[in-house]
Amino acid sequence: MFKLKNIISIKDFEREDVEFILNEASKLEDIAQSKEVSDELKGKILGLMFFEPSTRTRMSFETAMKRLGGDGIGFETSGSSSVSKGESIADTAKMFEGYSDALVIRHEYEGVSKFISDIVDVPVINAGDGAGQHPTQTLLDLYTIQKEIGHIDDLKIALIGDLKYGRTVHSLSNALGLFNNVKIYLVSPQELKMPQEILHDLNETNVEYEEVDNIESIIDKVNVLYVTRIQKERFGDIEDYLKIKGAYIINKKMLEGKDLIVMHPLPRIDEIDSDVDDTKYNKYFTQATNAVPVRMAILKTLIKNNPK
Amino acid sequence: MFKLKNIISIKDFEREDVEFILNEASKLEDIAQSKEVSDELKGKILGLMFFEPSTRTRMSFETAMKRLGGDGIGFETSGSSSVSKGESIADTAKMFEGYSDALVIRHEYEGVSKFISDIVDVPVINAGDGAGQHPTQTLLDLYTIQKEIGHIDDLKIALIGDLKYGRTVHSLSNALGLFNNVKIYLVSPQELKMPQEILHDLNETNVEYEEVDNIESIIDKVNVLYVTRIQKERFGDIEDYLKIKGAYIINKKMLEGKDLIVMHPLPRIDEIDSDVDDTKYNKYFTQATNAVPVRMAILKTLIKNNPK
Amino acid sequence: MFKLKNIISIKDFEREDVEFILNEASKLEDIAQSKEVSDELKGKILGLMFFEPSTRTRMSFETAMKRLGGDGIGFETSGSSSVSKGESIADTAKMFEGYSDALVIRHEYEGVSKFISDIVDVPVINAGDGAGQHPTQTLLDLYTIQKEIGHIDDLKIALIGDLKYGRTVHSLSNALGLFNNVKIYLVSPQELKMPQEILHDLNETNVEYEEVDNIESIIDKVNVLYVTRIQKERFGDIEDYLKIKGAYIINKKMLEGKDLIVMHPLPRIDEIDSDVDDTKYNKYFTQATNAVPVRMAILKTLIKNNPK
Repeated sequence: MFKLKNIISIKDFEREDVEFILNEASKLEDIAQSKEVSDELKGKILGLMFFEPSTRTRMSFETAMKRLGGDGIGFETSGSSSVSKGESIADTAKMFEGYSDALVIRHEYEGVSKFISDIVDVPVINAGDGAGQHPTQTLLDLYTIQKEIGHIDDLKIALIGDLKYGRTVHSLSNALGLFNNVKIYLVSPQELKMPQEILHDLNETNVEYEEVDNIESIIDKVNVLYVTRIQKERFGDIEDYLKIKGAYIINKKMLEGKDLIVMHPLPRIDEIDSDVDDTKYNKYFTQATNAVPVRMAILKTLIKNNPK
Repeated sequence: MFKLKNIISIKDFEREDVEFILNEASKLEDIAQSKEVSDELKGKILGLMFFEPSTRTRMSFETAMKRLGGDGIGFETSGSSSVSKGESIADTAKMFEGYSDALVIRHEYEGVSKFISDIVDVPVINAGDGAGQHPTQTLLDLYTIQKEIGHIDDLKIALIGDLKYGRTVHSLSNALGLFNNVKIYLVSPQELKMPQEILHDLNETNVEYEEVDNIESIIDKVNVLYVTRIQKERFGDIEDYLKIKGAYIINKKMLEGKDLIVMHPLPRIDEIDSDVDDTKYNKYFTQATNAVPVRMAILKTLIKNNPK
Repeated sequence: MFKLKNIISIKDFEREDVEFILNEASKLEDIAQSKEVSDELKGKILGLMFFEPSTRTRMSFETAMKRLGGDGIGFETSGSSSVSKGESIADTAKMFEGYSDALVIRHEYEGVSKFISDIVDVPVINAGDGAGQHPTQTLLDLYTIQKEIGHIDDLKIALIGDLKYGRTVHSLSNALGLFNNVKIYLVSPQELKMPQEILHDLNETNVEYEEVDNIESIIDKVNVLYVTRIQKERFGDIEDYLKIKGAYIINKKMLEGKDLIVMHPLPRIDEIDSDVDDTKYNKYFTQATNAVPVRMAILKTLIKNNPK
């Protein structure tokens, strides 16, 4: 049984909640891959409230709903919402509640999904709020690890790039605390180190971690390189950025002979060289595709457990 | 039997047409509320031509179509229509006619829906044209009154706020002329009084009305407070606006002990205090939700009565 | 059997490929016209990557998919794609591949559809790339000719207007080379004559053609007037444009007593007078509507032939 009504933060999950979703996603693979047709959510409607654009997240939620026989309504930017006419977010959410079986919220400010979940009766899914959480991304990351590596317990993973502002690496770190014997290598420039509160969480959950400033020193020790983008806007001085940038780029040559996979939440700019695309190391496109069965599992579970 | 092929103006309706739609909407409630699944309009497509944006209206039409097993296509602003490339509205409408089973039109100019209904063979629904009509809003207002008060004959209703430019209060006044023994209190500042032609219509249809400039004098006499927004742009002098504004705001305190409901076509800015939201008086969110069964009734009836 | 996996250029077609699609489209007419309901593509998803807007093309693809029981996801302008965040077109296409059963691409640069078809496994349809090809438009043009005239062999057709930049007349000329005994009259101002490479193609395929600069001289000889828009931006000197413009406008008077039909890929500005709309000569609206059965035939064939 899956106990949560809303998916707001990965911190609300216990290990069995994560396992329930991963297991369910696995069972929905054939439908996700268009090998089987489903009427599971026929007649059901997902409300998509995207106050900031996110093609990838929005489209995978839509696809998940449509593959299950349901459909979606909504807006893609706050400019096309009624909030642009002066309506409160609360009133907009109440309207969506009247039309939908579940809501997906994307907003630039942390806490908006939680706020909405407090005022509506339908399940609410946080699809990214500011520098906060993006729990369904974390679930599809875990699903990819489980599927490609075969286990999450005993995982050795390097989180690479912008660990300071990167929402996905924060959520993933928290989630790995639910598993046993995980070792995390935190690979970032000084300016973009993992925040103290996440390190604190790792200590609390007995996750072993080590902070390093280069990839070479850990590349032989890990199952997964989880790469994120370093935005030059994060550096006051562009020279500082250009100096360190090269040290966090993955290419085919450095991967040769290694026994690992490369993941990335996408979009990628140049932090993974395109010569990796055609190698066995590339699991970032698979990871993106895994968004569909995982979000199907979430939508099916929440809507079935919470009928209107 | 419902005789109309197009829904252009509430003035085209006779009482039995209104009653047909309200009755049909009532029968579709379980589907609207996602308690039952329908294939009633399976394979049917609604063309949504929104030359000006209206999230609420567009999404409730889409939801209505999708809950009945159909689907929608269209555009949300004139900028994303082919009209922005210089195509005439007539040619755009002919294209939509070829792809759809019915059309919904929203346009800033009065008369556009009527014009389109004259040149296409599929049913046309006016979803608001300028300061003109918005007949499906009126039908969902009447549905809400019928459902919450139990009757429309013998109704005592206060229309509050901007009665001069407010499209919904004009249409609603006309519709109430189809019922018996209705009393309307017209509550507005001097600058925003109900236009003479609507007063003329009320006289013609034997609706009793009374113009007042404050809420207190009538609050004990009515079943419904129908509130609309006063836009400060309507006042030449902002001081005039600020002076009168407070007199047309509804709050929880003034409602206590009264036997009435509060309605509002939404979006609301501040003309209903949010402390009313959690009271039994609040029927404006219910009213918004009622858009779905009422628009389902309209779409089902028009598409079934007028097969391609 | 239809051999092509991707629809990139009409030049990839043999006569039997064209005939297969036209025949299939003909069988799907009842579903396209909403007289029959289909589950043919139930659960299937079309990825719509419109880097430049095209309401008509996008909506007819969506309608085709939905009438067959499937659905679509996508974006309508490059501004709303993740390419606007710096993601490569290749990565965007890989994402869509993961979510969809086939892709439709519209882009301002020639060759983008071909490029994408080389990197994804699902079928790719070119919905117009720059001054290049728009093969599904050509197929619906041929379908309209077949249906209205009864044959494509022995056709006498005038291509009128901007023959230099007009993508549709280039593709159509190439396609007519697959049929027997076709005569093409090329009617354009000097500045906008058919390019040499298309004339070369016509010679290669034994299509007889004749270049003329006015409509009167050929109007009694043809089955079809295929009209395209002359954009004044093509002329350095606006006076030159105004001088020739009138000579390429079709009106009711010049058609009277003739045995022919008028076609146009739309949108039309003023190159066909609106007094032609209500005559038997008008087949341009029918042509637009024919987009649905033809695109249904293409989608059904490609998706069924290439399961994921």
